[in-house]
Amino acid sequence: MNEKRLAEFRAFLKKMKSYEEAIGLIYWDMRTGAPKKGLDARSEVVGVLSGELFRMSVSEEMGSFLEEFGSPETLSQLSVIDRRIVEECRREYDRSVKIPPKRYQEYVVLTSQAESVWEEAKEKADFAMFQPYIEKIVATNLEFIDLWGWEGHKYNTLLDMYEPGMTVSKLDQVFGALREKAVPLLAAIMESGNKPDTSFLRQTFDKEKQKRFSLFILEQMGYDFAAGRLDETVHPFATGLNPGDVRITTRYLPDDVNSALFGTIHEGGHALYEQNISPELIGTPLCTGTSMGIHESQSRFWENMIGRSRAFWNRYYPDLQRNYPGQFDNVSAEAFYRATNEVKPSLIRIEADELTYNLHIMVRYEIEKALMSGDVKASELPHVWNEKYREYLGIEPSHDGEGVLQDVHWSGGAFGYFPSYALGNMYAAQFSRTIRREMPDVDAKVEAGELLPVKDWLAERIYRHGKLLTPNDIVLQVTGEELNPDYLMDYLTEKYTDIYKL
Amino acid sequence: MNEKRLAEFRAFLKKMKSYEEAIGLIYWDMRTGAPKKGLDARSEVVGVLSGELFRMSVSEEMGSFLEEFGSPETLSQLSVIDRRIVEECRREYDRSVKIPPKRYQEYVVLTSQAESVWEEAKEKADFAMFQPYIEKIVATNLEFIDLWGWEGHKYNTLLDMYEPGMTVSKLDQVFGALREKAVPLLAAIMESGNKPDTSFLRQTFDKEKQKRFSLFILEQMGYDFAAGRLDETVHPFATGLNPGDVRITTRYLPDDVNSALFGTIHEGGHALYEQNISPELIGTPLCTGTSMGIHESQSRFWENMIGRSRAFWNRYYPDLQRNYPGQFDNVSAEAFYRATNEVKPSLIRIEADELTYNLHIMVRYEIEKALMSGDVKASELPHVWNEKYREYLGIEPSHDGEGVLQDVHWSGGAFGYFPSYALGNMYAAQFSRTIRREMPDVDAKVEAGELLPVKDWLAERIYRHGKLLTPNDIVLQVTGEELNPDYLMDYLTEKYTDIYKL
Repeated sequence: MNEKRLAEFRAFLKKMKSYEEAIGLIYWDMRTGAPKKGLDARSEVVGVLSGELFRMSVSEEMGSFLEEFGSPETLSQLSVIDRRIVEECRREYDRSVKIPPKRYQEYVVLTSQAESVWEEAKEKADFAMFQPYIEKIVATNLEFIDLWGWEGHKYNTLLDMYEPGMTVSKLDQVFGALREKAVPLLAAIMESGNKPDTSFLRQTFDKEKQKRFSLFILEQMGYDFAAGRLDETVHPFATGLNPGDVRITTRYLPDDVNSALFGTIHEGGHALYEQNISPELIGTPLCTGTSMGIHESQSRFWENMIGRSRAFWNRYYPDLQRNYPGQFDNVSAEAFYRATNEVKPSLIRIEADELTYNLHIMVRYEIEKALMSGDVKASELPHVWNEKYREYLGIEPSHDGEGVLQDVHWSGGAFGYFPSYALGNMYAAQFSRTIRREMPDVDAKVEAGELLPVKDWLAERIYRHGKLLTPNDIVLQVTGEELNPDYLMDYLTEKYTDIYKL
Repeated sequence: MNEKRLAEFRAFLKKMKSYEEAIGLIYWDMRTGAPKKGLDARSEVVGVLSGELFRMSVSEEMGSFLEEFGSPETLSQLSVIDRRIVEECRREYDRSVKIPPKRYQEYVVLTSQAESVWEEAKEKADFAMFQPYIEKIVATNLEFIDLWGWEGHKYNTLLDMYEPGMTVSKLDQVFGALREKAVPLLAAIMESGNKPDTSFLRQTFDKEKQKRFSLFILEQMGYDFAAGRLDETVHPFATGLNPGDVRITTRYLPDDVNSALFGTIHEGGHALYEQNISPELIGTPLCTGTSMGIHESQSRFWENMIGRSRAFWNRYYPDLQRNYPGQFDNVSAEAFYRATNEVKPSLIRIEADELTYNLHIMVRYEIEKALMSGDVKASELPHVWNEKYREYLGIEPSHDGEGVLQDVHWSGGAFGYFPSYALGNMYAAQFSRTIRREMPDVDAKVEAGELLPVKDWLAERIYRHGKLLTPNDIVLQVTGEELNPDYLMDYLTEKYTDIYKL
């Protein structure tokens, strides 16, 4: 084991991480308030830095590091951290070097054009505009999958990019189990005579007051403002530049008290993950969340299992009332709790409640799988989309703008990403079951405004590991079993049976 | 002339510019609101990108471009722009390659340590703490000057870094002429029985109102908010990332109506320069102000020749009154104008008025010159400083914190920088004289709120050229003569004779 070379490898990776951090900051700035007229030049800066980062990732230097440290014998001599670093780099390296640079470059241009075409197509509800692009994007993905190699199902190779180890057969099983219980639960809710009143959620809410309350809740969650900041954007997001700088954004709707609040808690959950990664992983490729699904489990856990819980509102509703003087005088904590948990099938994924959200994802999953197996052609997308919405949610879009064109993901080629959202919900419920076992008074703690023990529990078991553990390792290690969709359905069934008096 | 190689050279320079832009954005972010806990990692990012930028600037690649395009014969075949680019790169290249990398690295570490020691030393008014650092910094500068080469006076080599072409003999002449008239003018002002009342400047001013008025004046000046933004920092600054993204900051003091206002106009002047550089210079090393002195002339022109003029306040004082309802009811425009032009010798440079500011600079100039010639030793600095203040301004610091330790510049090794401030004042007055000749109704225009013709005049003659013209070229071309300190003294004499009824 050549210690000097290992130090060189670590320095090389740290340099790559510096480029990533610079690019991350530039994107944050572009989205939060960079002057419009400077954006063309700024895009070139991103191009230069990204190009350099990509060059390093597939360089001979990287290749020789991987060769040197990647043999089974050397791997076994490495520390646990270094071993995982080598594995992760190998994974990225293999993926990148298999694509001819020219084809990759063409694909980048294609998806960048497709994103602006999609924007216009969505606006005009004109799928025909977008069809040639989605056709080429699907074709290029299939071409790349052949270069990367695949097992079982072509779609597996894409799933693995966002959720390492995830497969079609696993997803078919968990989504099947989920759907089996979700559909009748939704039907029962729809037939319930005990629907919550939600009218008071739609008043006019002062932006400064919304911001103040968002900041208050973030602070309660243990979000570290010396290692982050809250800004305002049209599309909320979280970005971890390094564990000491994890920024989030939210959006304040003037007529909706919950949009900013739950958006902030959601992004705050992502941020807690990134802020609490172990310092020993800083400067390595392991210094980030282990997968999109596990990351989403943390945003969902805080947003739903904590933020939409009765215990939470028993504690924080008086604060909310005080924050909006006079606006909730005649609304009880219980009424507010029930209203924030309204279930209602809708056409738009990002507005969906905890239950129907998963059905939106299943529609997309089924379609992506069929696109990759060749069972559905791009031209058939609008028809298939509408059919699946009727089948899964019982409603149908009136035009493609609120149908097949609603999400940006496909225009950027992000096939395989959508399942992460539903996986996040399932992981979150499974973690929630575990914390209740290990910390039986968790509801009492939340009701007492003690959210920090919850954060610490998650930090100890999940956050600090970053990418050192795989998603499957995390779930196994924390909960004692693999991903199990029953916990989500048990949680939802219990919650809605109570709220809707089923 | 190898067109392909020229294109490669241009691409190489554009890449360097991208690194510069990324570093500039990171610094802006660090100063405007980056979370504290992320700063250590962020400094490493800056280190990686700056290192790469420096590596490119002294690379064999750069060397071979300069060799290829730098011969008199090839130079003569290049376009005016490309010729200046080669000259500028040669200048930077020669400067950088002559310093052994190890010595440069040690100097970077020294000045970085010196800056934090200086901060503490200033706080404690303890020059002895700082003395060993300033000694080493001076010694290293002298060592570097020998490596770079010098003519006439060692200090010339440092002056040339900030103001290409500037020399001790030129500065001795202009500062001598300036002082000859400034000292008696100051004495006359001090003896005047017609001092302005300034009490109304020190009320409590709402921050949001200060911000609103700053934004209003910036807009009047023609600052393009689609190509910039205004933020808040302890030390105001302007940064031109590219002509489409030129950001400024200001600082709102609760008890001073003028600090934010004139700070904003000052930085706005810098920003107008950078926003209006010709698009054909984008992505080249010429896309910035031509020197520190010319840059400062633009901030000073807007701050003083426009912002502290009677015409300006005849137009904008009613707006100011409306902006602070009730706070200026009993103050006339004339009284406000006179108050903003109060002259008063003080110990602190950055609080100085238009007249005494130049004397503060001359003290520093004399000291820097003497340090570089060996006539003054670092250990003698406090004594020399105090003596010069008595001589030039008639007052003496009570401790070194408000004396020799007041400025950050020397701790960073920025010898040769201070004269730019006074040069800026002189250039500004000279430009002001020219605009009055070419646009005789300029005061009437300002009084009518027509500031855009002024901006356009400056853009056409100065801003658009960026670094394509040298400072001397600019002054000659715009005013028809070389730098002439009489214009500043004429301007100040006329202004204060009127205000103080001398």
